[in-house]
Amino acid sequence: MSQRFAVIMAGGRGERFWPQSRLQRPKHLLPIIGDAPMLCQTVDRLAGLVPPGNVFVITNREQRPGVLASCPDLDPANVIGEPVGRDTAAAVGLAAILVKIRDPEGAFAILPSDAAIHDGKGFRATLATAFEVAESGEHLVTVGIKPDNPATGYGYIQKGEPFTSSGKEDVYKVRCFVEKPDLSTAEKYLQSGDYFWNAGMFVWQADVIGKALSSHVPDLWLALNNIENGIREGENLDSLLEEHYPSLEKISIDYAVMEKADNVLTVEAGFDWDDVGEWPAIARHNKSDPQGNILKGKGMIRDGSGNIVVNEKEHFTALIGVDDLIVVQMGDATLVCPKSKAQEIKKLVQEMEKNPDWKDLL
Amino acid sequence: MSQRFAVIMAGGRGERFWPQSRLQRPKHLLPIIGDAPMLCQTVDRLAGLVPPGNVFVITNREQRPGVLASCPDLDPANVIGEPVGRDTAAAVGLAAILVKIRDPEGAFAILPSDAAIHDGKGFRATLATAFEVAESGEHLVTVGIKPDNPATGYGYIQKGEPFTSSGKEDVYKVRCFVEKPDLSTAEKYLQSGDYFWNAGMFVWQADVIGKALSSHVPDLWLALNNIENGIREGENLDSLLEEHYPSLEKISIDYAVMEKADNVLTVEAGFDWDDVGEWPAIARHNKSDPQGNILKGKGMIRDGSGNIVVNEKEHFTALIGVDDLIVVQMGDATLVCPKSKAQEIKKLVQEMEKNPDWKDLL
Repeated sequence: MSQRFAVIMAGGRGERFWPQSRLQRPKHLLPIIGDAPMLCQTVDRLAGLVPPGNVFVITNREQRPGVLASCPDLDPANVIGEPVGRDTAAAVGLAAILVKIRDPEGAFAILPSDAAIHDGKGFRATLATAFEVAESGEHLVTVGIKPDNPATGYGYIQKGEPFTSSGKEDVYKVRCFVEKPDLSTAEKYLQSGDYFWNAGMFVWQADVIGKALSSHVPDLWLALNNIENGIREGENLDSLLEEHYPSLEKISIDYAVMEKADNVLTVEAGFDWDDVGEWPAIARHNKSDPQGNILKGKGMIRDGSGNIVVNEKEHFTALIGVDDLIVVQMGDATLVCPKSKAQEIKKLVQEMEKNPDWKDLL
Repeated sequence: MSQRFAVIMAGGRGERFWPQSRLQRPKHLLPIIGDAPMLCQTVDRLAGLVPPGNVFVITNREQRPGVLASCPDLDPANVIGEPVGRDTAAAVGLAAILVKIRDPEGAFAILPSDAAIHDGKGFRATLATAFEVAESGEHLVTVGIKPDNPATGYGYIQKGEPFTSSGKEDVYKVRCFVEKPDLSTAEKYLQSGDYFWNAGMFVWQADVIGKALSSHVPDLWLALNNIENGIREGENLDSLLEEHYPSLEKISIDYAVMEKADNVLTVEAGFDWDDVGEWPAIARHNKSDPQGNILKGKGMIRDGSGNIVVNEKEHFTALIGVDDLIVVQMGDATLVCPKSKAQEIKKLVQEMEKNPDWKDLL
């Protein structure tokens, strides 16, 4: 019987969670939601679905030590550090090669490292369905999240007719993948009931996604073949990546394959999902006081509502007479920003990068 | 010739500058304005006017080590730690005794420890005038600050006719001392041109203020006599204070003497003065950026104006899209508060005092 694998994509920088997130300690290595780093929660959520030895993580070289330190249960041989970021198509192709070498008939799930999912059982049930459908060897399968608001920050998946031949409920043909919409388009999508959010979760056989890459981004796939051949000849993976990775085309798996392929199915997620993209999102996962304040760590909020305060354990933050602010303290840095301007945090970090004196703060 | 002394009152807690000020490190031990602790600036300002060995500081027992550490030029024998606070009349009486013992004809200035005064030369000239007038041995002399706004946070002094017999300009008889007024009263005071702010600066002969205390608060003065007698008999000052101080009447020198005495003169201050009572006051003494932000230490203010940010040297604070906030970081604590609510900081500290877990933060 063919094996199941999971490949967790852990390459993000998490600038939007500065100052808690830093270049060496990005969002997926932090307990933004819950008590364990988001990546470890993602690994743990796979228990019973994918054997621990079949769980890969693709991260970057700088973060690899942090990944190993944060999630000691991972097999170090399965934690791949990209020498440079080459977007998701390259990473998916690399994953396909690594899986194929272990099991030519293996199927694998691509999973983001940092989504908040509380219903692990529902997650495994949906993924099991996706694996079963993918293991028939014909389809690229994506997980679709039923939207509950007209979000403009995600791509959408338009579902087609139910894929009844799978014998499974909640499996649909995919009509198309669409880019992040504007608000009025997103509202139409929401109303129609035909659209899912694209959460970047995919399941496919290594062979099937390999063929799709070969067909849609042939140069990329050919270049990856050099890596495959090197591995099979016993060469060092890091050296191979260093040699071949930088020249790979930088393109997302959505652009490269999903928007073009005609053999895509989607499984409607039977679990909660939140990508927790910015500080305000943590409000959805933490208990607030009667004034709607969230206080992680020690502190006091006097005459204020709707604030989010995040402290290191021993630090104390006092707020007086302010509303809807994000106040985050971590080590040698403090951030104060209205919730409505959370998207500016990324720009702040980019601006800080220009000043060499502030490098240690990033 | 009789000697001149200065007695600096350094008993405040500076709750309003939390978290930079703490119980052990009150405002006068911090460089709130300038680079040296406010108390040291006050001591240094006396150079040339009062011999260094004649400068006393009255503080409390908890702060005494901090005073000695912050201002190493002070003679430790001249730094008195009150075992309990008994308001200013008791402290002034104690000062009178200490001065009288050194020089029965000595005169001394009472000075707050934490006012911001940039014009040291002007300060010494005004004080020299006050000393000369006081040394005639008939008057209690106070320094009056010409108001430039209808402040409601100070007591006022109504001046009477010029005291021409002194041969000095800017010396007036005092008609009365008045309590902190409401705004409309303060506006009338300001318009009349007849009122000064009472800045808590007094000059008098030890003998003259002693007689005034004896006449207006005889019990207090009698009790202080026990301390005087003990000192003269060679007893330990700390033990004497411990024995007699707690039972002293708790009353301010303004209530006890100044509002009742009929031999009060005032010298108009020929120098700048700011009591820097709250965080927003530091804006008057620090250079701001073009958006009116003041940033002490490291940090970045993106799209915000009128903010006051105070950091420890290595700490970095980033503000995004906020206006007119006070953000102060110190050690294990951070405060965020609109400038308009600075007066609430004291209440916050009082609230924090109720929680034993937060004792170390105060």
